[in-house]
Amino acid sequence: MNNSVLVVGSVALDDIETISGSRNDVVGGSAIYFSFAGSFFSNIQVVGVAGKDFPDETIDSMQDRNIDTTGIQLQEGKTFKWGGKYHEDMNGRDTLYTHLNVFEDFSPQIPAEFRKTPFVFLGNIQPDLQLKVLEQVQEPRFVALDTMNLWINEQRDQLLEVIKKIDMLVINQTELADLTDEDNLINGIKYLHEKLKIKYIIIKIGEYGAYISAAEKRNKTQHLMFFSPAFPVPFTIDPTGAGDSFAGGFMGYLAKTGELSFKNMKMALVYGNIMGSFSVQDFSVDKLLSIDQDEIENRYSRLRQLVTI
Amino acid sequence: MNNSVLVVGSVALDDIETISGSRNDVVGGSAIYFSFAGSFFSNIQVVGVAGKDFPDETIDSMQDRNIDTTGIQLQEGKTFKWGGKYHEDMNGRDTLYTHLNVFEDFSPQIPAEFRKTPFVFLGNIQPDLQLKVLEQVQEPRFVALDTMNLWINEQRDQLLEVIKKIDMLVINQTELADLTDEDNLINGIKYLHEKLKIKYIIIKIGEYGAYISAAEKRNKTQHLMFFSPAFPVPFTIDPTGAGDSFAGGFMGYLAKTGELSFKNMKMALVYGNIMGSFSVQDFSVDKLLSIDQDEIENRYSRLRQLVTI
Repeated sequence: MNNSVLVVGSVALDDIETISGSRNDVVGGSAIYFSFAGSFFSNIQVVGVAGKDFPDETIDSMQDRNIDTTGIQLQEGKTFKWGGKYHEDMNGRDTLYTHLNVFEDFSPQIPAEFRKTPFVFLGNIQPDLQLKVLEQVQEPRFVALDTMNLWINEQRDQLLEVIKKIDMLVINQTELADLTDEDNLINGIKYLHEKLKIKYIIIKIGEYGAYISAAEKRNKTQHLMFFSPAFPVPFTIDPTGAGDSFAGGFMGYLAKTGELSFKNMKMALVYGNIMGSFSVQDFSVDKLLSIDQDEIENRYSRLRQLVTI
Repeated sequence: MNNSVLVVGSVALDDIETISGSRNDVVGGSAIYFSFAGSFFSNIQVVGVAGKDFPDETIDSMQDRNIDTTGIQLQEGKTFKWGGKYHEDMNGRDTLYTHLNVFEDFSPQIPAEFRKTPFVFLGNIQPDLQLKVLEQVQEPRFVALDTMNLWINEQRDQLLEVIKKIDMLVINQTELADLTDEDNLINGIKYLHEKLKIKYIIIKIGEYGAYISAAEKRNKTQHLMFFSPAFPVPFTIDPTGAGDSFAGGFMGYLAKTGELSFKNMKMALVYGNIMGSFSVQDFSVDKLLSIDQDEIENRYSRLRQLVTI
């Protein structure tokens, strides 16, 4: 199967408070958001760990969407739990608690039938675990990695080790600043291409959109760049998982088309923004469960229209 | 003269501190930034007030650029002074002091030869003064208005009175929220079109770019929208005046072309972003004094390229 994407990440039950309301024990985690968003484009294979409290219905609805859940280890104990409260403007948030539960001893086991999957997304987990995934897969065509400030600051060496083996890094602006020590976007991107030798970079600009940059040749100093604004939605209910839904849309589209041209990556970036825009319009993955391909295409056209003169 | 723009706003001497350094008594004020930026496109006519300490060289260099300074009243006393310190990330800033000086008794007098100018920009001054300007001009073709939270919150009635008489409002996101009581961009814009009956709206998104929205007919609920990202620069020296330079570029281009189609406004918005991007690359108006038309066109092409698939 040439259009499959392997994703390794967290599987969670979240407690979420926003100004729109609060929800307890709703499904979340990077691998879950990624899978539902990506499933509109490609076959998604998930690797992660869940406790006995993870709802069967979610597994069922993943399978309904051709998401291969073989790689989700169901273990005795509770699912990873994250509790978070969003600030009034929905941009900032405070983590209220993190209970690792079954995630504490997670060691990714890639099922034999997933090891030749061409597209691999390393969700935001410890760099050592991301490395373990790469040790088990066989010559993937395209590997993208997400990370966070915690790993950048506390497991930097391990992270830099994984980064050597990937094709694309997906981070946000504060992560860019922490990783490169550059506050400026352009200089930060330059650092990643030239010092860390990363070929493709996506910088997520929160509610505003995302940049993608490609170093055509590893030593070229001029990079190809593209920006797509986020799709402006009339309300945001829950920003949780927007970045993971974005990544799912991006990787799903890339895998579906199987083409690694920069032009195609630009289109993938727009689809990423679209999937992020749906994700925030309800709690958990609820909105992703209720949309169809037409709505995605409609937003794609309107988002392109928004930047067209 | 059909391609002239009349601007009324502040003329200032600023004391500025940023992480790149500090400067005292540098020329600033909305009318000054606007004029220099707009002068690349159109004849700009400035109305404002300056003290005897305002540098002759600035007036000379304005005249060199065909900026008509007849309307700058030179009065005994000191020029309006603003002292500000930018936060490390250059996004936020604290006002250290504001000395109104000659600005305290400013009452805009529009010279007779400026009263039929077709394009009018009401810079960010008290709504009462903006109204006085409109009482003196004769059937302008297009009037745009900038304002700030101070007037939105403390002189709301007067501001709403002026807003009835304008074609376009130019504000930023926090001003939008204060004016409409809507945190959401889409809903805020809808409020301005439908409740306040404003035909054209520009929302400046700080370092990220700007939206423009047009209500084709005053009662239509579907609006035309366009977004242009800011031109990403490798360093920011001083963000002061970026919004005014943006407005100067926008209005200057609009007046130069004389065409009020939405397509043309989109192009004007891109030029606005370009002029803002130059402005931040040095203290005061220094960068605006050192660029040429080719550099502007070069950035225009590159910025359009940035969003083109």
